[in-house]
Amino acid sequence: MGGDFGPSVTLSSASLALSEHPNLNLLLVGQQTVIEPWLQQQPANYQQRCKILHAEQVVEMDERPVSALRTKRQSSMRKALEAVAAGNAAACVSAGNTGALMAMSKLILKTLPGIERPALITALPTMDGGRLHMLDLGANVDCDSETLFQFALMGSAMTQVVENIEAPRVALLNIGEEEIKGNDQIKQTAQLLQQCEDINYSGYIEGNAIFAGQADVVVCDGFVGNICLKTCEGLTSLMLAKMFPGRNLPRWKKWLIGLIFPGVVTLKKAMNPDQYNGASLLGLRGIVVKSHGNADVGAMASAISEAVLEVERQVPDRIADMLKSALLGN
Amino acid sequence: MGGDFGPSVTLSSASLALSEHPNLNLLLVGQQTVIEPWLQQQPANYQQRCKILHAEQVVEMDERPVSALRTKRQSSMRKALEAVAAGNAAACVSAGNTGALMAMSKLILKTLPGIERPALITALPTMDGGRLHMLDLGANVDCDSETLFQFALMGSAMTQVVENIEAPRVALLNIGEEEIKGNDQIKQTAQLLQQCEDINYSGYIEGNAIFAGQADVVVCDGFVGNICLKTCEGLTSLMLAKMFPGRNLPRWKKWLIGLIFPGVVTLKKAMNPDQYNGASLLGLRGIVVKSHGNADVGAMASAISEAVLEVERQVPDRIADMLKSALLGN
Repeated sequence: MGGDFGPSVTLSSASLALSEHPNLNLLLVGQQTVIEPWLQQQPANYQQRCKILHAEQVVEMDERPVSALRTKRQSSMRKALEAVAAGNAAACVSAGNTGALMAMSKLILKTLPGIERPALITALPTMDGGRLHMLDLGANVDCDSETLFQFALMGSAMTQVVENIEAPRVALLNIGEEEIKGNDQIKQTAQLLQQCEDINYSGYIEGNAIFAGQADVVVCDGFVGNICLKTCEGLTSLMLAKMFPGRNLPRWKKWLIGLIFPGVVTLKKAMNPDQYNGASLLGLRGIVVKSHGNADVGAMASAISEAVLEVERQVPDRIADMLKSALLGN
Repeated sequence: MGGDFGPSVTLSSASLALSEHPNLNLLLVGQQTVIEPWLQQQPANYQQRCKILHAEQVVEMDERPVSALRTKRQSSMRKALEAVAAGNAAACVSAGNTGALMAMSKLILKTLPGIERPALITALPTMDGGRLHMLDLGANVDCDSETLFQFALMGSAMTQVVENIEAPRVALLNIGEEEIKGNDQIKQTAQLLQQCEDINYSGYIEGNAIFAGQADVVVCDGFVGNICLKTCEGLTSLMLAKMFPGRNLPRWKKWLIGLIFPGVVTLKKAMNPDQYNGASLLGLRGIVVKSHGNADVGAMASAISEAVLEVERQVPDRIADMLKSALLGN
């Protein structure tokens, strides 16, 4: 029910995801009167792979998390998370209110042992054709060094599992590369990371190096991460809009561009925000993927694909294993 | 003497700036044995407009500000600032160590009445062809609401004077546009701004809207601002490098690109970081412009041009006037 466009996008993305993942089954959580008519128009194969879980209430996009926790016990968001907690769903995907999703996830799914606060992580393209994972992207506005250290552990584990990298290079986002730079939290986090044998810590990274492929995991607090990511998204889409002013460029122009100017085409594909939609809430005893509120059908389907991948790779279990070794010394 | 390339760039930029500004006179502060031979090779007209102020020491790029303050009393940076304080120069331009420049400026030039901490501000291009001013960009890593409020006042005054905008729209960088979003400092700053009659406060702005032309001044703390700006620079230059892989694109390709794809050319011009080099240290009783350490000759000359503009517009005096009215109630 969530997102800026509501079920019109989420339901269409469901059918796209069903076509992309033949083994996928979906539990559609929300108002039955909205979902039922849509489902009846789907192919028989899709109908068999979907169940509806009715939820009367909807968490509003601008609702305070505390209010959503108290008054929205019958909401689609809460019921979807309860389905994951009960083992009736392997993952929850939502385009709804981020703060409420975070608060409800923590309450219903609980955090992994040793983790105080879940973090939002997403994959981003690097300019050498690789991917990096960045966290936190807005789940936590104030973070102490212990929290940032936990983010680094979780981000490293996630990247190991999802990208098949044995020892991901973990960097700490800072305003300089020298040791003396940064605020106290950052300096203390750097010390914790240097001492940790389970993390391949590569030092501070500056904003201009994020996309250069120098790190596999970039760690920062949620305030910085959110602003940084949104600024990049804004800049990229504005630049692309400036380069491709008309959506319907004549085919001969596209062909000519591709011929004399292949970099632009590669770039447009690489920077396509759709394929990077879907930020995961890490540190929970279950898989929760947050889609952008303004995601379109293709982007929302990417968030579902992210959830499928994390289910296949058993991300929470693998993170728990790594945390056991690093935090609890087992 | 400062910057990643030292006098080879700063001296060449000096002659470029002399050619661009016929009324400009330069006081070249640094090691006489380095500057003298260069100056002797310049045209007579340039020689007449330059004086050398010998300084034995150089502040290193990675030196701690505290150490530079204590041990570099004969440095080019310090002597340049002392020349401004004594009225022997109208402005100081440096490509040196930012932290040291900030600390020395504060000590030697002093802050304006009512201002506790100077801030770094720079102009950035917006996608509608305009300019915005963003501060702080790294001079202050931890800022309380009072400091952020002062940044807003100074940024507004600067933009009024430099851009000839009567009531610049001042926005506060945050992780959401809703009132409930953000950390405590941000929320308290928003209250201060709402109550201030001297500021045209337009509310929170998210990262993705910075370059959209929705604000004339964007206020944030130095940690966020530095990372945000550097990330944008990195992203832009990586995107441009991807689009223009060879520096020496054949002329017919350039011509074809311009013909079928004018957006790219406009964009490359608009995003050219050179012309936006030169961040000003605001809140001082004098003009100090910081150039990027890695600036080339053209970029460094832009920083000198920024200083010329601020001298012509008497930026510190105008900011002092506005502060008097807003902070001290005169």
